[in-house]
Amino acid sequence: MNSSDEWQVIDRFFSHLGAVRTDVLLGIGDDAALLRPAAGQELAQTTDSLIEQVHFLPGAPPRSLGHRALAVNLSDLAAMGATPAWALLSLSLPSVEDSWLAEFATGFGRLARIHEVALVGGNLSRGPLNLTVQLTGQVPAGTALRRSGARAGDQVWLSGTLGDAAMGRLPEANAALRARFEYPTPRVALGAALRGIASSCIDLSDGLLTDLPRLAQASGCGAILDVDQLPLSPDLQASAAALSWQRALVGGEDYELCFTVPPEKVVRLSALAEQLAVPLCCCGRLRPAAGLELRCAGSVIQFSQSPFDHFKG
Amino acid sequence: MNSSDEWQVIDRFFSHLGAVRTDVLLGIGDDAALLRPAAGQELAQTTDSLIEQVHFLPGAPPRSLGHRALAVNLSDLAAMGATPAWALLSLSLPSVEDSWLAEFATGFGRLARIHEVALVGGNLSRGPLNLTVQLTGQVPAGTALRRSGARAGDQVWLSGTLGDAAMGRLPEANAALRARFEYPTPRVALGAALRGIASSCIDLSDGLLTDLPRLAQASGCGAILDVDQLPLSPDLQASAAALSWQRALVGGEDYELCFTVPPEKVVRLSALAEQLAVPLCCCGRLRPAAGLELRCAGSVIQFSQSPFDHFKG
Repeated sequence: MNSSDEWQVIDRFFSHLGAVRTDVLLGIGDDAALLRPAAGQELAQTTDSLIEQVHFLPGAPPRSLGHRALAVNLSDLAAMGATPAWALLSLSLPSVEDSWLAEFATGFGRLARIHEVALVGGNLSRGPLNLTVQLTGQVPAGTALRRSGARAGDQVWLSGTLGDAAMGRLPEANAALRARFEYPTPRVALGAALRGIASSCIDLSDGLLTDLPRLAQASGCGAILDVDQLPLSPDLQASAAALSWQRALVGGEDYELCFTVPPEKVVRLSALAEQLAVPLCCCGRLRPAAGLELRCAGSVIQFSQSPFDHFKG
Repeated sequence: MNSSDEWQVIDRFFSHLGAVRTDVLLGIGDDAALLRPAAGQELAQTTDSLIEQVHFLPGAPPRSLGHRALAVNLSDLAAMGATPAWALLSLSLPSVEDSWLAEFATGFGRLARIHEVALVGGNLSRGPLNLTVQLTGQVPAGTALRRSGARAGDQVWLSGTLGDAAMGRLPEANAALRARFEYPTPRVALGAALRGIASSCIDLSDGLLTDLPRLAQASGCGAILDVDQLPLSPDLQASAAALSWQRALVGGEDYELCFTVPPEKVVRLSALAEQLAVPLCCCGRLRPAAGLELRCAGSVIQFSQSPFDHFKG
């Protein structure tokens, strides 16, 4: 689109989207945004894209896309224990349709306001549908959660339930499961609360069987995972029956947090779960030897390295 | 691509691309990067995309694309007077070709090192070719250049020469003009040096006839532009002859800076131009009345508002 079109669309749908923040000195409309970082904080920065035919099908509801485009980035910051602040949005659209843009902006804007995120810049082009968000947050210096901080013996914990989003993508899914896919809840408050408690953290975007080995490897450990302990929702168990544990292990897009806790700090978790109203569940521990050990109904399966190539290759 | 592929490509071509910076506490490889902003600085953030069939044609040289994807963002920060620091890269690729990726990374990496920019994160997907860069820089608090700071009577100045990049896109262009298009030079040092001198600034991405009215309007002014004073290179004049001024006015992609200077500060510009070895040229001034007045070979053309719709609509 030409620059006049671009400006009109931005002005109409994206100016002042999200939260109003006093640390935004200059938002959309100049060559760059100007932001005032808080003293004593580090910045956490991430970016993620949703692309048609890759991450969603043509005709996907635009309100859900606006929500998801921001949620996947919020989830990354949650996994660092960071508090989100400022977003940029790069939108490539095959055509300008007002109703699509309004719905997309609604999905994005609602989630942004919940997490006090201001949309401070971006760009808009005509092209194949591509939604790329870049998000910056802040975390008190030296306190960020990393994948690499865990030690052998630390317990492996999960938030929420797994596999619902994977089931929610399928046509036969009920409304609750579909909502878990279309409107995932990034665990931002939990991530921040885990600072000083969790020794490491990762968000579950690709599935536990991919993401847990990443965390373990970054920490120089292996992991033991008790599949019988995986948190499964009643909806998933009713829908997927015997396949529930597979969806929970490899389904992906749960955007729950997987984190490790040293045994002496585990007592602090139950208060946290209650305070935040987030179910937390222990499903394994880290071990010194590399690889992954799955325990399931009395059987033990050993993987010498990350198993995700077997499942996803 | 699956997450194993994605990680291998990132590890091979993009880990540690660009400058090494001590303020990058955690780069590529976790859920987000961790960065330490300097005390007393504001952040300047921007993002821009290059999309195949929109911003470049199939078969465009990947080294040039890597350079341009970063350069257009560097130019935005230059226009704020900010010093660039940290980049994120979102790449959508129809296929993984090692030679393409190596060339792209070379173009991006060289320019990043020149400007001490570290690549701290990003993502990689299979999809239509889309290169999106997000760039964060820093600027001493309260000193950033904005579009809105000018007053009527301020002189309008330009860096470098205009129209070369527009001519360089055409098949008949010589190597020097083609280089201006494929490897634009963002005016980062000039932008920083203009802090305290320029009253407003914008980078010339869409062409002077679009961008100067934007600056004037943001400052609550109109502009008088002396077309006879536009800085044209000998290469452009030899190639485009009588069309040179049109390319200079509406061609776009020059990535030069257009800035205003109060009359009493103009004396400081010549030392700056010499010190930075950047030609600077005065080509007009701001006026109280809105709109744009073009002066050319004794004629005067008045536009009541931004003229870019007439030329680009």
